[in-house]
Amino acid sequence: MSEFVHVAVDAMGGDHAPAEIVKGTMDALNKCPNLKVTLTGPEDLVKAELSKHQYPQDRVQILNCTEVIAMAEPPVEAIRTKKDSSIVKGLRLVKDGECDAFVTAGSTGAALAGGQLLVGRIKGIERPPLAPILPSAKGPVLLIDCGANMDPRPTMLVQFAQMGSIYMRNMTGIENPRVGLINVGTEEEKGNDLAKQAHQLLKECPGINFVGNVEARELPEGVVDVAVTDAFTGNAVLKMYEGVAKVILHELKGALMSSLISKIGALMIKPALKGMIKTFDASEYGGAPMLGLKGLVVKTHGNSKAVDISKALEQCITFKEKKINDLFRSEMKLDELAARKRASGSKTTES
Amino acid sequence: MSEFVHVAVDAMGGDHAPAEIVKGTMDALNKCPNLKVTLTGPEDLVKAELSKHQYPQDRVQILNCTEVIAMAEPPVEAIRTKKDSSIVKGLRLVKDGECDAFVTAGSTGAALAGGQLLVGRIKGIERPPLAPILPSAKGPVLLIDCGANMDPRPTMLVQFAQMGSIYMRNMTGIENPRVGLINVGTEEEKGNDLAKQAHQLLKECPGINFVGNVEARELPEGVVDVAVTDAFTGNAVLKMYEGVAKVILHELKGALMSSLISKIGALMIKPALKGMIKTFDASEYGGAPMLGLKGLVVKTHGNSKAVDISKALEQCITFKEKKINDLFRSEMKLDELAARKRASGSKTTES
Repeated sequence: MSEFVHVAVDAMGGDHAPAEIVKGTMDALNKCPNLKVTLTGPEDLVKAELSKHQYPQDRVQILNCTEVIAMAEPPVEAIRTKKDSSIVKGLRLVKDGECDAFVTAGSTGAALAGGQLLVGRIKGIERPPLAPILPSAKGPVLLIDCGANMDPRPTMLVQFAQMGSIYMRNMTGIENPRVGLINVGTEEEKGNDLAKQAHQLLKECPGINFVGNVEARELPEGVVDVAVTDAFTGNAVLKMYEGVAKVILHELKGALMSSLISKIGALMIKPALKGMIKTFDASEYGGAPMLGLKGLVVKTHGNSKAVDISKALEQCITFKEKKINDLFRSEMKLDELAARKRASGSKTTES
Repeated sequence: MSEFVHVAVDAMGGDHAPAEIVKGTMDALNKCPNLKVTLTGPEDLVKAELSKHQYPQDRVQILNCTEVIAMAEPPVEAIRTKKDSSIVKGLRLVKDGECDAFVTAGSTGAALAGGQLLVGRIKGIERPPLAPILPSAKGPVLLIDCGANMDPRPTMLVQFAQMGSIYMRNMTGIENPRVGLINVGTEEEKGNDLAKQAHQLLKECPGINFVGNVEARELPEGVVDVAVTDAFTGNAVLKMYEGVAKVILHELKGALMSSLISKIGALMIKPALKGMIKTFDASEYGGAPMLGLKGLVVKTHGNSKAVDISKALEQCITFKEKKINDLFRSEMKLDELAARKRASGSKTTES
């Protein structure tokens, strides 16, 4: 059996904490014999949840926390002041090397700020991106970045492309992931300054399968496996996806319930609809990884249920087993890059 | 009867030109007694189409053109070199004051470049935006800008908000349009540099009902009437909307046709579905206006049918009857603004 993968889990994150978080963690433990977890949260609450389950007790620890970071709190301040919170303590376990990864359904902002401030970047990585999966008609699309890098430099987008490519190749088995740059048109001279400059750098970047610009319209069709962009645009694209899908499905439901005949019709199409909705369910790929850190941080949806947490834990196992951070270092030549930057006087130390 | 509104129509624009363009124009003429049109395109082709219709001949002219700008041509070059094209000649009619507006289903890039280069801006307008309507569960949302302003200054976004507000109030009858700034979160300190600066300026801008930041997720729900953003983000949001809706409806159709029972169910829900799709049909609001020009330029979808052209022509009539360009000048104090800029040495002449 392979060595253990030790994951810290934020027992207090998201709308259904701690019950669904603990349940999902127990499901993953029972499924994955090489998984060890440390649940961060108030010990009495976590213990009460644990008592509802059968699980391998030797692979579960609790790290007591007296604080919780709420969704709406200013992230950087929360990370700095709430030192006894489930997020800060979970991230510290990764920083100290006690855990390989941290999973949270809590505040995205706190996870991002804490990932950067507490866990720290791999040497040579300019900025760590957050990369959720967009479901498409043809499979998962990694949307990188949707994190905190609102005004990135073009070189950062190149690193996003490289990390996204390595991640998708190893996590989903796509052999030569198609990398596209989100832009307003396919012609390379199109776009804002950032996109124009990034396009030129991506064209020349070895080791990635850059297929050029991709319009947001094409993303749900699955024309690329990795869609590179700045966090501001990525956020708009991701949220538009969620918003449109939600409203259409809501209106569809309303339409189906509008008359007796349509209700009977709805019953008849239900199995077909379920199959369709499954096509657009990206939860099997786990949560959104924050890449380029000295460990993995996975952010799952705020409304995560047990199955989402369980999938995210499996994602952490694969990430470690495939040695993805080592691949980042070797394939992106990060040591070389850091040395070159050090020579030219840029800031290079791991943060 | 009010004075005539004279609109130039690109007979050669879009996938269904000239047949659907000419048909839509004739429909609008028969419906609107104060409409006059000039069709730009090869005279023989346009005449052949006209011969299929009954229409008031005294309100139709043809301006013969020997060239057509294709969708994929580099726009600025096309505008400069194809002086005998249906787009250039149509825009020149507006510039020369012979027409009040120009409608095209052709190249968006050429319409944008030509609007700016040939028709020119109203004095005091920094940059003219293109503002398509997004359908939402609660009515139309003006998405401003989706045009050529990829790296705008924050002050430009303020003008977009003002123009969008005046446009929606007068064109749709919404009394006090809610203006939102597309951003990654509702807190005002969020976003990229542009959004942060624009937020502060919008907060202080008189005459608009600024409701703060809006996340792309909320747009399909219709929480604002005017959604302000830069053209790069606007383009991503618009295209994501189209892409997600298209893929979901395509998959839905596939699901409904997947078995005999679902096919029967589909027949039973058909009327309800049609009602739902109508909710999301923004075509009744016409095409996307390019605002801030010394005349109106309306860009309709490349796949425009007769009904879209007809609606766009009605839109041009309302735009003129409501004197919207005069409202821009007075409510936005454009003369004052231009004078102040002239005094401070900035470029101010109408372009």
